[in-house]
Amino acid sequence: MAKRIYFFDDPEPVGRELLGGKGAGLAEMTRIGLPVPYGFTVTTEVCREYYRLGGRLPDGLKEEVIQSMHKLEDKAGKKFGDPSNPLLISVRSGARVSMPGMMDTILNLGLNDETVLGLARLTNNERFAWDSYRRFITMFSDVVLGISKDEFEKVLDEVKEKEHVKYDAEVSAEGLKEVALKSKELVQKITGNPFPMDVWEQLFMAIEAVFRSWNNPRAILYRQLNNIPDDWGTAVNIVQMVFGNMGDDSGTGVAFTRNPATGEKELYGEYLTNAQGEDVVAGIRTPKPIKEMAQEWPNTYAELTHVAALLEKHFKDMQDMEFTVEKGKLYMLQTRSGKRTAQAAVTIAVDMVHEGLIDKETAVLRVSPEDVNHLLHKRIDPSAKGNPIAVGLAASPGAAVGTLVFSAEEAVAEASAGKSVILCRPETTPDDLHGMVAAQGILTTRGGMTSHAAVIARGMGKPAVTGTESLKLDLDNGVVTAPGGVTIKRGDVVTIDGGTGEVFLGALPLVEPEVSAHFEELLSWADEFRRLGVKANADTPEDAALARKFGAEGIGLTRTEHMFLGHERTQIVQDMILAETTEERMVPLQKLLELQRSDFIGILKAMDGLPVTIRLLDPPLHEFLPEPHEAAKELEQAKRNGAPAEEIERLERLYRRTVQFQEHNPMMGFRGCRLGIIYPEIYEMQIRAVAEAAVELKKQGYNPRFQIMHPLVGTEEEMKFLAEMTHKVVNEVLGNNGIELDYKVGTMVEVPRAALVAGDLAKYAEFFSFGTNDLTQLTFGYSRDDAEGKFLGAYVQKGILPEDPFISLDRNGVGRLVELGVTEGRATRPELEVGICGEHGGDPKSIEFCHQVGLDYVSASPYRVPLARLAAAQAALKEKRGEIFKDK
Amino acid sequence: MAKRIYFFDDPEPVGRELLGGKGAGLAEMTRIGLPVPYGFTVTTEVCREYYRLGGRLPDGLKEEVIQSMHKLEDKAGKKFGDPSNPLLISVRSGARVSMPGMMDTILNLGLNDETVLGLARLTNNERFAWDSYRRFITMFSDVVLGISKDEFEKVLDEVKEKEHVKYDAEVSAEGLKEVALKSKELVQKITGNPFPMDVWEQLFMAIEAVFRSWNNPRAILYRQLNNIPDDWGTAVNIVQMVFGNMGDDSGTGVAFTRNPATGEKELYGEYLTNAQGEDVVAGIRTPKPIKEMAQEWPNTYAELTHVAALLEKHFKDMQDMEFTVEKGKLYMLQTRSGKRTAQAAVTIAVDMVHEGLIDKETAVLRVSPEDVNHLLHKRIDPSAKGNPIAVGLAASPGAAVGTLVFSAEEAVAEASAGKSVILCRPETTPDDLHGMVAAQGILTTRGGMTSHAAVIARGMGKPAVTGTESLKLDLDNGVVTAPGGVTIKRGDVVTIDGGTGEVFLGALPLVEPEVSAHFEELLSWADEFRRLGVKANADTPEDAALARKFGAEGIGLTRTEHMFLGHERTQIVQDMILAETTEERMVPLQKLLELQRSDFIGILKAMDGLPVTIRLLDPPLHEFLPEPHEAAKELEQAKRNGAPAEEIERLERLYRRTVQFQEHNPMMGFRGCRLGIIYPEIYEMQIRAVAEAAVELKKQGYNPRFQIMHPLVGTEEEMKFLAEMTHKVVNEVLGNNGIELDYKVGTMVEVPRAALVAGDLAKYAEFFSFGTNDLTQLTFGYSRDDAEGKFLGAYVQKGILPEDPFISLDRNGVGRLVELGVTEGRATRPELEVGICGEHGGDPKSIEFCHQVGLDYVSASPYRVPLARLAAAQAALKEKRGEIFKDK
Repeated sequence: MAKRIYFFDDPEPVGRELLGGKGAGLAEMTRIGLPVPYGFTVTTEVCREYYRLGGRLPDGLKEEVIQSMHKLEDKAGKKFGDPSNPLLISVRSGARVSMPGMMDTILNLGLNDETVLGLARLTNNERFAWDSYRRFITMFSDVVLGISKDEFEKVLDEVKEKEHVKYDAEVSAEGLKEVALKSKELVQKITGNPFPMDVWEQLFMAIEAVFRSWNNPRAILYRQLNNIPDDWGTAVNIVQMVFGNMGDDSGTGVAFTRNPATGEKELYGEYLTNAQGEDVVAGIRTPKPIKEMAQEWPNTYAELTHVAALLEKHFKDMQDMEFTVEKGKLYMLQTRSGKRTAQAAVTIAVDMVHEGLIDKETAVLRVSPEDVNHLLHKRIDPSAKGNPIAVGLAASPGAAVGTLVFSAEEAVAEASAGKSVILCRPETTPDDLHGMVAAQGILTTRGGMTSHAAVIARGMGKPAVTGTESLKLDLDNGVVTAPGGVTIKRGDVVTIDGGTGEVFLGALPLVEPEVSAHFEELLSWADEFRRLGVKANADTPEDAALARKFGAEGIGLTRTEHMFLGHERTQIVQDMILAETTEERMVPLQKLLELQRSDFIGILKAMDGLPVTIRLLDPPLHEFLPEPHEAAKELEQAKRNGAPAEEIERLERLYRRTVQFQEHNPMMGFRGCRLGIIYPEIYEMQIRAVAEAAVELKKQGYNPRFQIMHPLVGTEEEMKFLAEMTHKVVNEVLGNNGIELDYKVGTMVEVPRAALVAGDLAKYAEFFSFGTNDLTQLTFGYSRDDAEGKFLGAYVQKGILPEDPFISLDRNGVGRLVELGVTEGRATRPELEVGICGEHGGDPKSIEFCHQVGLDYVSASPYRVPLARLAAAQAALKEKRGEIFKDK
Repeated sequence: MAKRIYFFDDPEPVGRELLGGKGAGLAEMTRIGLPVPYGFTVTTEVCREYYRLGGRLPDGLKEEVIQSMHKLEDKAGKKFGDPSNPLLISVRSGARVSMPGMMDTILNLGLNDETVLGLARLTNNERFAWDSYRRFITMFSDVVLGISKDEFEKVLDEVKEKEHVKYDAEVSAEGLKEVALKSKELVQKITGNPFPMDVWEQLFMAIEAVFRSWNNPRAILYRQLNNIPDDWGTAVNIVQMVFGNMGDDSGTGVAFTRNPATGEKELYGEYLTNAQGEDVVAGIRTPKPIKEMAQEWPNTYAELTHVAALLEKHFKDMQDMEFTVEKGKLYMLQTRSGKRTAQAAVTIAVDMVHEGLIDKETAVLRVSPEDVNHLLHKRIDPSAKGNPIAVGLAASPGAAVGTLVFSAEEAVAEASAGKSVILCRPETTPDDLHGMVAAQGILTTRGGMTSHAAVIARGMGKPAVTGTESLKLDLDNGVVTAPGGVTIKRGDVVTIDGGTGEVFLGALPLVEPEVSAHFEELLSWADEFRRLGVKANADTPEDAALARKFGAEGIGLTRTEHMFLGHERTQIVQDMILAETTEERMVPLQKLLELQRSDFIGILKAMDGLPVTIRLLDPPLHEFLPEPHEAAKELEQAKRNGAPAEEIERLERLYRRTVQFQEHNPMMGFRGCRLGIIYPEIYEMQIRAVAEAAVELKKQGYNPRFQIMHPLVGTEEEMKFLAEMTHKVVNEVLGNNGIELDYKVGTMVEVPRAALVAGDLAKYAEFFSFGTNDLTQLTFGYSRDDAEGKFLGAYVQKGILPEDPFISLDRNGVGRLVELGVTEGRATRPELEVGICGEHGGDPKSIEFCHQVGLDYVSASPYRVPLARLAAAQAALKEKRGEIFKDK
């Protein structure tokens, strides 16, 4: 049978899987000679066995615990339950990974009506003894018996009132005794049984309670949120008590080996004199900064500093330590890797490489890509955060302050008057784009993490809070009502935090993003390790320049439809749509050609020397038209106003087209290359514009490298048609100018069929870019816009989906199509370039998958390029270490 | 080098691939000793070579033709171009399969200004000679020189006017001579060159012209429509002329060995005395029924009867023969398998088995499944067909006569008043269902072959013409305007033909469908050969009974949503949707439970002993609600009218729900099992209704066999949840009643992901049914409703798609998912039952695919069950013969 109990000084090396994080930390500290109270750990395997047995301790365990207690008694020179010299212990939970505050701890176990007297006698401190006892009764009753702490708080309050004191520390020894005795009575009254006086009974009840606490609702929720498997279980640590509440030469505290906010190398933390552990947490007394200890207890401070250095050297990471000082003697009660801000994570990782503590690979692996993401956005000054009036979805990170506006037009008007604005809409549509550009941040009351507002905002690197359903939006009157009746009117100032989803009334101070030298250095190491290329999705020269600054090695996706928007252009695009013959259509197309050419010159110039993938027109044409009922209204009005015949004819045509192009399921309708095949003149114009832009730049001495990407291809014949069209037009432009240029033609792989016939598409396509947004929609049959609000959240909650497949790529379904597409595409054309340009290109777990299946690059929004560089490096390093994530 | 020319008596057996159908027929007839004029065939390979060379005759061909002509001269005892004894020939096209009237023929070649005189002299018939010459000039000019026949018709008309005669046959020899000479002048005038007098030049020009005619527009279109490869090419047959225009003992005709309309065993056809081939076609003189020949030329008739019997015995199929009688002597000019009606096809195939001419396998293979389809619907009496006023899509076969109505309500009202009605709508929605049930036929101005109207009508076996875009529908005034200005008002009578898409004004006589004993016999043979099971899609007891009558072996798909419609039920369903809590929802659910139970009793009883697959609620809930603007209007009205508070509250809720359930892409929205997982009480109610129905029937001594099918499943966890829910509810019902029953639980495979994780789904699913309608939509990313009207037609026309993938299953994409689903599903659960219930289940080519990939059954609408039985048998037989269709 496997060993079920390990002492802290057990020579056998077992890890946190069995001992839990706390137990492993205590054993490790004991092993390297640090002052740790003696004790032992009951393994997580016993917890798992406990649940397998339907919730009872395995046979023989009690006997083993008793033997271990005897060993502890020997070591301590005290006896468990012996009134003359009682051994007191703490019983503490400890899972494989830290789940702070989620599970239970009991201190001072071993006290009863007799041993409390012995403790008083031995310590010569009656107040301390009764304080410890009443604390124990409270904790035990709470954790083991399920009686709310509040009940005991009331007892304490009564005594405080009686003694006319305000703080717990002012209650007399007699008063604390009264609290203890009344607490016991309370237990008897509530449970019908006396509070257990048998210390062994106390111990076994406590062990079971810790095991049970693994499945308390908050622990389950925490695991769900943090992807911690339910079957890991918790260990139980039984440790001899040391006491920080034995007088002014005693105390307790927590300390970090480095500053967890900034990463600076300094001892950081706080402590309380004459207190037990939970007092720090309870916040009844304000703890002192750890630096003050240097004055108060210089020796202890020096020892703690030394311990901190030893621990960092041993664990090679910044540590979060708990300690207690009992009558001047330092005891270490816990050590673990310290949580830290993104900035600190980067600083510490890089510093530790320079200090020789860790190597570059470890440094790169130690920083979470999602953390990096936060470094690139403004944040609300953490010290200034108040209570939000509403919380929506954290749709696009960063914080923004501005006056509230309710339409794109207002946003543009106010912004051009120099104001910062927050655009608030039920949800956004492509029509709102100019307003989104003008706004500092976006706030919507509907739509999910991948709604139009969210996707576009992330692409722009602009803060957005979406789906804030608790806000009631009254567009007509320009008023938003928050829960509790707070109303915000047009022109009021709000602050939104797209990193948390919070909405605040008024202007909160913001903190600028810091792209430190540390960060640059870390990313440069990441670049050494990664195999995946990293490109960016960028639609404008500004975005392209930004992406380049963040290290993008090219543009993986330029969406040309955004270039069709803006008032003047929409007009021309409508003329194009209204044309009834190809000839008639050539006039607006010629105008668009000129505009597009200058668009492409801008982007190709910004990315001089790097490849730029340009996707031709993708959305259905009705997106450029008004709604039919609007068009009808406009037509009616024009007729009533006696508008000129020509105008009326145009409006009639417009109305007819809005009806004609209306669609039941626009996502699967007349869009993408279907447009380019039925109206080849549109795609030909776009291709010509790209080629002419490249020619012009080449003439100016630049090195333009373009790749024409056709969207929504699903059949070999489409690809053939489009590739031939592309080569024809490009070669004509190059030939006319006597210029030679390398370019590529390829396709998005975004309908499932494209992946299924990838081998055929690769006959004509020189590159594939997996458009995993649409591919996910079609593979699951989920309309993103509809699913997010209606069933996706519930699906994740019910465990039908492990996570939102629009955020993290679904490996078994969508991923299988991606793998198939890569394999069969390359079988036809070994040099086929394969990338991904869906939003998954900016998701670390999905990037790991892209690495695994051998893509050439990922393409993410400019602000996620650093994240992608880091995630790509981590994927390569994990692969090297055999740690790569495997689903199923 | 391959042989390029074959004489009819060539001993080497080569088939129609090289000789074309006509050449092969002539050679075959020659070989079995029938009277065939001598001649030879230039192979189809030469035609292909002609095109490979960019449109010129291959080197050396002319020399070979000349040598062959000399052999023909020897045999005929005449010389080509010799005025004293001229050899005349016909030059005729002939492709591998018959393409009647598509390509070109030239008769009387070898005539010129000199040989015409020789012909006159030799035949002692000047009129005949000049008639032959002027016909030759016309045909040659038309076919070779591209001059319209109309030009020559004018010349003939002038002469007829001059001679004051009405018919061609009345024109004098002198007149015909004038026509010939003037025709030659006309050629000179139009082409600038004289009509060729060199007979060899005539011959080579004619051969090239026949090759060119392979690519004339009508031939290309015909091939496209009939799936004939463009690279087959045509052969050229050169045959010594025989003359049916040499007097009253001469003539020409066509005859079938059996009646091609009824299949009756009799010589059937018509002939003209003193005429050449094209006169029969031209319709200038009315030909006589072939039976009259028995009186007029008894010997010839006997000989022809004998030839017919010989040909049938030789070709083992009904033959369509062309013959000419020259001065009492019978010459066979062509034989081929005769086209026939569906009824004749069945009768002939079955009769020939009984006659010992063919075996059952051949009989089953000889009847086209699509033809069979027509046997089961009323048709317009072929003799009564006039000109249609409009032609739409042939969406659902059969003909119907009725008064026109413009709304479902009208349809119900008129029908309940005993009238036959045709429901005319822009397109139909589920709201129109009761109207469609009430109508005799459906006519829509929008929507394709797979629009709602088309799908539902086919399911009901009801005639429908959809997408009749040339009709302008003015719903407000109840008027339809056809091209040319014909208007039809509400109440006018129309006839529609859903087999052709034609719409006629007035009531045309209809012919009842004939399900003959022959047909029953043929289907019983088909059942012996097929491996695929055939089930039906049926939603009502009536449909189920019909399906059973047509030989369905179970129900593959019962859609339960149709049961939610109808005025009373819609109200209850709305109550269910409006409920804000599960408790509130239980009241309408209890009502629905009772209604559904009786629905299922009806169907399970009708299918007693056969399996019935019941699909739970599938469409998005908003399909049961009004449009938001309608709901808003109703609410406003109620408020204005001071309706009771309760009513207003209900309407407010209704409005809120219409907004809440609105969707951007409903096809991919909150529907299918997503409803059943988020609102489990709905599916539980349906499952309970099925189980209770089965229990009740079992108690009555029936043998109910149900299968619960969950729609739109895409993940293992959904399947697990739904399977567990099903077993729980069913076992509870069975347990409570102490009854044991076999049942199954399974899923539609209709989102691509379901096929990709089929191995996981099969852990919980006992059967799969491929829902290839939705699977096709999602695999291609084509919204059927949008694609059909916008780009699908153009895609097929441009060759981007070989055919509409909603009609015939796409093997490379959708088919690959089906195969994968079958393979991986069975790997997990070898006894997994796998079928298809999309519309492809009724398409012969798709059925062949289903057979190939090893499905257990196909499920089609009741009216297509016989077709499916036949197609399934043909697939099995073709596989046995190694002839099965392989794409790529």
